[in-house]
Amino acid sequence: MKLAQTSTGFIVSHKNRTVLEHSEVSPALYLGIGQGTFDMYRGNFDISDYLSERLPLKKYSISENSDDIVVTFFVDGDAALEVRLFETAETRLKAEFKTLDDQYNRFWIRVAATENEAVFGCGEQLSYLNLRGKNFPLWSSEPGVGRNKSTYTTWQADVKDKAGGDYYTTNYPQPTFVSDKKYFCHLQTTAYADFDFSHAEYHELQCWNIPDYLLFDAEESFPELMTNITDVFGRQPALPDWIYNGVILGIQGGTEITLDKVSVAREAGIEVAGAWCQDWQGIKMTSFGKRLQWDWQWNANLYPDLDSKIHQMKEDGVRFLGYINPYVLEDFPLYEEAFEKGYLATKEDGSKYVVDFGEFYCGVVDFTNPEACEWYKGVIRANMIDFGLDGWMGDFGEYLPTDCSLHNCVSAEIEHNKWPYRWAKVQHEAIAEAGKTDDILFFMRAGATGMQGYCHALWAGDQSVIWEIDDGLASVIPAALSAGLMGNGISHSDIGGYTTLHGNKRSKELFQRWAEMAAFTPIMRSHEGNRPTDNHQFDTDSETMAHLARMTKIYKHLKPYIKAAVEENANKGMPVQRPLFMHYEQDSQAYQIQYQYLFGRDLMVAPVYNQGETVKELYLPEDEWVHVWSGETFTGGWINVDAPIGQPPVFYRKQSQDALLLAEIKNI
Amino acid sequence: MKLAQTSTGFIVSHKNRTVLEHSEVSPALYLGIGQGTFDMYRGNFDISDYLSERLPLKKYSISENSDDIVVTFFVDGDAALEVRLFETAETRLKAEFKTLDDQYNRFWIRVAATENEAVFGCGEQLSYLNLRGKNFPLWSSEPGVGRNKSTYTTWQADVKDKAGGDYYTTNYPQPTFVSDKKYFCHLQTTAYADFDFSHAEYHELQCWNIPDYLLFDAEESFPELMTNITDVFGRQPALPDWIYNGVILGIQGGTEITLDKVSVAREAGIEVAGAWCQDWQGIKMTSFGKRLQWDWQWNANLYPDLDSKIHQMKEDGVRFLGYINPYVLEDFPLYEEAFEKGYLATKEDGSKYVVDFGEFYCGVVDFTNPEACEWYKGVIRANMIDFGLDGWMGDFGEYLPTDCSLHNCVSAEIEHNKWPYRWAKVQHEAIAEAGKTDDILFFMRAGATGMQGYCHALWAGDQSVIWEIDDGLASVIPAALSAGLMGNGISHSDIGGYTTLHGNKRSKELFQRWAEMAAFTPIMRSHEGNRPTDNHQFDTDSETMAHLARMTKIYKHLKPYIKAAVEENANKGMPVQRPLFMHYEQDSQAYQIQYQYLFGRDLMVAPVYNQGETVKELYLPEDEWVHVWSGETFTGGWINVDAPIGQPPVFYRKQSQDALLLAEIKNI
Repeated sequence: MKLAQTSTGFIVSHKNRTVLEHSEVSPALYLGIGQGTFDMYRGNFDISDYLSERLPLKKYSISENSDDIVVTFFVDGDAALEVRLFETAETRLKAEFKTLDDQYNRFWIRVAATENEAVFGCGEQLSYLNLRGKNFPLWSSEPGVGRNKSTYTTWQADVKDKAGGDYYTTNYPQPTFVSDKKYFCHLQTTAYADFDFSHAEYHELQCWNIPDYLLFDAEESFPELMTNITDVFGRQPALPDWIYNGVILGIQGGTEITLDKVSVAREAGIEVAGAWCQDWQGIKMTSFGKRLQWDWQWNANLYPDLDSKIHQMKEDGVRFLGYINPYVLEDFPLYEEAFEKGYLATKEDGSKYVVDFGEFYCGVVDFTNPEACEWYKGVIRANMIDFGLDGWMGDFGEYLPTDCSLHNCVSAEIEHNKWPYRWAKVQHEAIAEAGKTDDILFFMRAGATGMQGYCHALWAGDQSVIWEIDDGLASVIPAALSAGLMGNGISHSDIGGYTTLHGNKRSKELFQRWAEMAAFTPIMRSHEGNRPTDNHQFDTDSETMAHLARMTKIYKHLKPYIKAAVEENANKGMPVQRPLFMHYEQDSQAYQIQYQYLFGRDLMVAPVYNQGETVKELYLPEDEWVHVWSGETFTGGWINVDAPIGQPPVFYRKQSQDALLLAEIKNI
Repeated sequence: MKLAQTSTGFIVSHKNRTVLEHSEVSPALYLGIGQGTFDMYRGNFDISDYLSERLPLKKYSISENSDDIVVTFFVDGDAALEVRLFETAETRLKAEFKTLDDQYNRFWIRVAATENEAVFGCGEQLSYLNLRGKNFPLWSSEPGVGRNKSTYTTWQADVKDKAGGDYYTTNYPQPTFVSDKKYFCHLQTTAYADFDFSHAEYHELQCWNIPDYLLFDAEESFPELMTNITDVFGRQPALPDWIYNGVILGIQGGTEITLDKVSVAREAGIEVAGAWCQDWQGIKMTSFGKRLQWDWQWNANLYPDLDSKIHQMKEDGVRFLGYINPYVLEDFPLYEEAFEKGYLATKEDGSKYVVDFGEFYCGVVDFTNPEACEWYKGVIRANMIDFGLDGWMGDFGEYLPTDCSLHNCVSAEIEHNKWPYRWAKVQHEAIAEAGKTDDILFFMRAGATGMQGYCHALWAGDQSVIWEIDDGLASVIPAALSAGLMGNGISHSDIGGYTTLHGNKRSKELFQRWAEMAAFTPIMRSHEGNRPTDNHQFDTDSETMAHLARMTKIYKHLKPYIKAAVEENANKGMPVQRPLFMHYEQDSQAYQIQYQYLFGRDLMVAPVYNQGETVKELYLPEDEWVHVWSGETFTGGWINVDAPIGQPPVFYRKQSQDALLLAEIKNI
């Protein structure tokens, strides 16, 4: 860390990157007073701020000490904010903030930028990989349906359910970004935040409290930067070995249907790793479609004999996965128990607080209460792990209402963005304490700073079952890449998408294109969607099954390659799906491409995400790339390749140590 | 005016109304620095502000002098703003602002409010009469198509043309409001402004410069307040007498078609005051529909012999009206002349600047150049008045781009909202200098502070030809009422609406309901719409003509009544269409009703604005009201009346001096 005093201010730099530039004319910090409103409608938020003050911190004094530098900023002659700058033991730059006047609840810091700088991250971002030119509100919420105000889907979702979303809506926001200058910058806060990358000379990071600190570090290469980042936020464990055996089939409807569908799939040659039955605890019907009975115990009516069948399936090589989330259904047994024990969030006056999830109401398990966490871990252990589940979707985490009261007495506005972290930790610990971390898979869509060490895998949330660029097959690519840069290197998505609303129905072509992409992600898993009968399914026709069979065989064939990449993620924080610039940092194009990715080090994947497209235009950075289907070699640049159904545009590096394995893909 | 010093601040009041309450904890004034962006797309604006500073003016010093009080506010120890408070010769409170630090370009002032106060005005507002609970950006623009984000029309208009608008978009914003406490408050600025009425204890008025002054006055009654307001902003002259002879028919297509249609109308019994041929100077076809050839001279190809026919028509009792706007079509004669003379707005470097109006481009006549005004007045005189036109639509005025350069060297951002005023003045003076103020009618949709004395009549802009609440028949009612409270007491609208886009087509029922309302407004005028063949027209069938004939006869019958109301507007500023509270100030309901109005003192009009509605629920303040069709008398409250086509819900006061005249309506 270096501090240089200038005639009118100072400059803080770290490892040759300028971090803060302060002068009276262009201050690096602002404090303010705002009054926010958070209107929540089923996980969709309408957030606004009445900002009454925004004050530039122009005047300051500096004291340089042996191990830190303290800058005190003044407002109207009074000390208002103290910033303690120092280098951590790991040689990161840390700037700790301490307010000296507690009326301030808005904070802005400007991190030095250059005009053409590209930045990435901010959690899981589905519309943009390079975030430059826009601002990104950071608040965990439903991801939005359509996520683009110009689409019919979004308009309908907005009008009917306030659920359309926008380019920035995400289950997983994180106040951290990565720059093409090979640095990362993290603002430690769980308050509502908004990172604005639209200014030429600075990135302006806003949050609705005084953040604990800003953390900044840089490396010589992106891979090293990933290790650094995951040293800070944690790393995902490696996946259980059984994952690589094939697809996890999303099935609903009971024991018999599950066994039948698995059997049909296997007969068709589909490699099946597991059956994921989200309705294992029963269902309820709503106008949205099939919803689940949120009481987190085996439903013997819908799944008779599952207590024995689950073990038979396992012996037969098919794992059984279920579903849970951090809410308990009103008037059902778990709710009653939690309510009596005081394990649920309450209204301010201590009375009952339930959340509307769409025609049913739930209590929120209060994870700020260690006893509530232990209790929920016990539910997971007894009802799920000990019952024999091999994994589950750990759904939700974004619905903490801002007006509920919590055990730790921290404002729910501050806890809201932390909730997914708490939820991940509960699940991880339940599994770890059962000694099953290497055998049970759970996956989440919600995310938060620090969940990297707890959440075993992300899934990209609930895409619409059509070809929308901001809420479909395409959008899960930047989602995986941005989340990967935050240290969540294992991501995947529902094959075929999920949200079947507003007339959208999943077509055969979409299912197939999605399956083709999924074969080149760390986990293959299908979903029937919220209205299964409206959607094309894996078993709708034999052609679809034959196609899926081939994709699962390719995936299974790649096991050693994928497993090595997953290990690298577990050990070094290197994401399995990587943006092109990760390994081609000299290539300026590589920073702009968001619908292609490197799968591991040696595979380039350019999924077909447009309906009817059979010739794919794609970009290859300078290298020797072999098209897996034709065997043709390319050395880089923009090219067109044939991409009929069954031949997704995939290339491997000729120099790969796994070239033999990868060359065999075409024979499967 | 009174100033009371308190322990931590001061209170300014005037005529027993609290105006400003200032304390260090809750300052009345803020200054700031912002950087606005104005993206214009064919008159639709996307406006945003990057606000870097918003500073409370906490500290102050006061000097009380014999004829004024000067309050100086300090920021960080430096004098930043001087406020000079005094009572004008007319006993109004005036607060003049002078910035002492020219870095500030954002200004907020909080006018004291009480929780249940209702406020009105802000120019012509189409969605809300009572503005409380919302903020109202004030920027002259296209009014929006649909003006409601939940409608299909607005969504389509947004997606295709960025033209959907919202509840506050208006051709005519004015930074003036009227309170139910019988005061008005005006902020003298032409910069972008935003009046926020969503706070319980204050109305926060924002503008993007330092305003010249705030003007405040109160009266004992609303009628007196109207006189006060129009003493400030000016009063519209009375209408030419020929207006009352019947409907002004919107006709397009040439001399022969015009004469034919007038003849057909008269044969059907329709009272025709004039033919309004907006295409008198020729047409051009665009994808939007028929557009006009903006070169402001008689087009002898489309209107052969008009130079003689116009006089024959006048002798025959039918006036001929045309169309003009403040732009000149690129490469046409007027453009060439204006360009050569330097009468057009330019780019910053002095080069040519044209504005996109939708598949054609125009120059903006620079009304800040007195010579350009004289020239344009000359065009109006020679090409229109001397040619024999009896009136015209003085369209537009909202399209001044913020990045053009003007003769007076004032920023176009500051001139933008003033442009409609300048445009009205040019037209009024051209007419006045020809000595024709009492014989020529022009009407505008755009508006601005002070145009009241120049614009002879408003029309409510371009409603969609369907039943949309925020952009249809209903919306022109609050439009007329709010504009009326600003001193524009003569308003009217296109019978049947105008905008025929996104699948919307005008139905017979809509045309008839609109005609029924128009009979109870100061001017009856029809419009074919932008796609005439898609719309039901006055001559589509004989039933429509018979219905319109009856409505024009009613209107004509009411001539003495309407004329007296128009005179009252000209003399005292009392609007012809009035909100219920104007005469029923004790009735709290009267402040909330925005889709009914008093037409003059004695007629209550409750237009049917819902499709298929034949029984109307409406409110009558306490009085003796006679239903014009049944003769039944009501004394007040919510009632239901039959309202089939042909019997619009209209009531007259039994005590009216015109009771005999009004009772005869039913016999027409």
